Amino acid sequence: MRYAIGVDAGGTHLRVALLNETGKIVAKETSIVGPERSPEKFFTQLAQVIQKTAGDRLKKIDGIGLGLPGICNPKEGVIHQLPHYPEWKDVPVGKILKKSFKVPVYFDNDANMAALGEHWKGVARKYPTFIMLTLGTGIGGGLILENKLWRGEEGFAGEVGHMVIERNGRPCACGGQGCWERYASAGAVPKGQTALSLSKLAEAGDGAAKDFWREFGEYLGMGIGNLANITGVEHFVLAGGVSKAWPHFIDAAKKKIAKGTYPRLSKKIVLTESSLKGDAALLGCAFAVFKGFGG
Amino acid sequence: MRYAIGVDAGGTHLRVALLNETGKIVAKETSIVGPERSPEKFFTQLAQVIQKTAGDRLKKIDGIGLGLPGICNPKEGVIHQLPHYPEWKDVPVGKILKKSFKVPVYFDNDANMAALGEHWKGVARKYPTFIMLTLGTGIGGGLILENKLWRGEEGFAGEVGHMVIERNGRPCACGGQGCWERYASAGAVPKGQTALSLSKLAEAGDGAAKDFWREFGEYLGMGIGNLANITGVEHFVLAGGVSKAWPHFIDAAKKKIAKGTYPRLSKKIVLTESSLKGDAALLGCAFAVFKGFGG
Repeated sequence: MRYAIGVDAGGTHLRVALLNETGKIVAKETSIVGPERSPEKFFTQLAQVIQKTAGDRLKKIDGIGLGLPGICNPKEGVIHQLPHYPEWKDVPVGKILKKSFKVPVYFDNDANMAALGEHWKGVARKYPTFIMLTLGTGIGGGLILENKLWRGEEGFAGEVGHMVIERNGRPCACGGQGCWERYASAGAVPKGQTALSLSKLAEAGDGAAKDFWREFGEYLGMGIGNLANITGVEHFVLAGGVSKAWPHFIDAAKKKIAKGTYPRLSKKIVLTESSLKGDAALLGCAFAVFKGFGG
Repeated sequence: MRYAIGVDAGGTHLRVALLNETGKIVAKETSIVGPERSPEKFFTQLAQVIQKTAGDRLKKIDGIGLGLPGICNPKEGVIHQLPHYPEWKDVPVGKILKKSFKVPVYFDNDANMAALGEHWKGVARKYPTFIMLTLGTGIGGGLILENKLWRGEEGFAGEVGHMVIERNGRPCACGGQGCWERYASAGAVPKGQTALSLSKLAEAGDGAAKDFWREFGEYLGMGIGNLANITGVEHFVLAGGVSKAWPHFIDAAKKKIAKGTYPRLSKKIVLTESSLKGDAALLGCAFAVFKGFGG
């Protein structure tokens, strides 16, 4: 049996899994990322968690795959920018990890890895073309076009969360205004509340919470309609913490999509929940390792 | 020498050209489209103009290519919808023309044809990947990804003009609100004026006209930034009547793109004027015929 290490690094947690070539997660460890976020600190912690997760099987791994929430350039072998890790700048991830583990390293942004995972073992197995949307504190996008991850000319495709949908809209951490992710991700939740608390309130019948999710759904649908109009892609897979509130926003999203696209197109659009949930990116990392794919 | 007929059907004019396999326009005829716009009327007029344009060489043509401003489905062989020709519904263009001319027929929406033309013989010859933007009464889009026209799952890709950039924005003929083309095409020009009159006023130093083009440029840049963020495409070719006002809007557009995309991406973005101008779609039609490409 072949093995791979998958790494999903988020804003608060570092998740590491040992997977086999059938896509089974054999072992998994979650570790909290501390406030110090230099590349040195990160890679020291990561090496320890990988050791702990893989144990003796570390000798048997084919490689390491990483999904990172930032601007990755697999072509040049560096991560340009990681919003949650402000000290990072053009970090040569592959080179650093290869030095410690002597195996091939594949990395890409977490939404691209999630797209690969869903396409390999998830709900998108049957979709040759789809867009993966990860609704977390922002919105990540991964485009699979005719069974191939589409990275754009330089690797920057899929930054869908920064599509502007309101000219003078809410300010965004990117320096812009009116970015989609400020309206249709956990970043849209008002301070003092969480996506989970608002979901529970909506379930209990709270009017304001229901209104919040309806508006959330409208914005979500507006952005998905834009993506469909631009790319002609008809299949969308949604993942991320916010997607738990699915029943509260999905009808509003579908209505908005129908309004924003030609009838011939809108009839074809399919929104599906991720079936791998939090593990999509880990699966994608393993896929990248086993297929030698991902730069 | 091989020949092809190219047809560019717009909202007011029907343009037909005879082209040879080097991309040279050997003959060209322009005809006004009358108020009656049934498919019967259209195809009768088109047959006459094709006859007139090709003359004796009609016997030598390899095929006919058409660029049409609407929702084309080359896969199913029909045009679903043509906004300027409201009577058209699922018209089997290829079948109709093949009956009269006994040659292969290739059709697609005009922006896709323009993209093929620019890629074959225009300024995008050297771009494996780019987005064609036709700024007419609306905004058409044609995506060339790695030297291939990307049509989406069903042929509906490139409807970039209906990307919503203002939630409660200007009403659009599509039934939606805040569509990009209501802000960054000739459709943004206030009633009583034209893109040309506003260009001349701006050239003469008129403040209001200069303000109009600055705002136009900002909206144009906002949409192009969105396209770059989503698709990772860095090369954009602009054509259409409005692109004549280029010097009055281009700086504002570039500034907005720089604001709306990550620095690594925005540095790479290149906006170029079409070099084939009004003939891009005709060239694309000929390319489709000679390459047997386009459905």
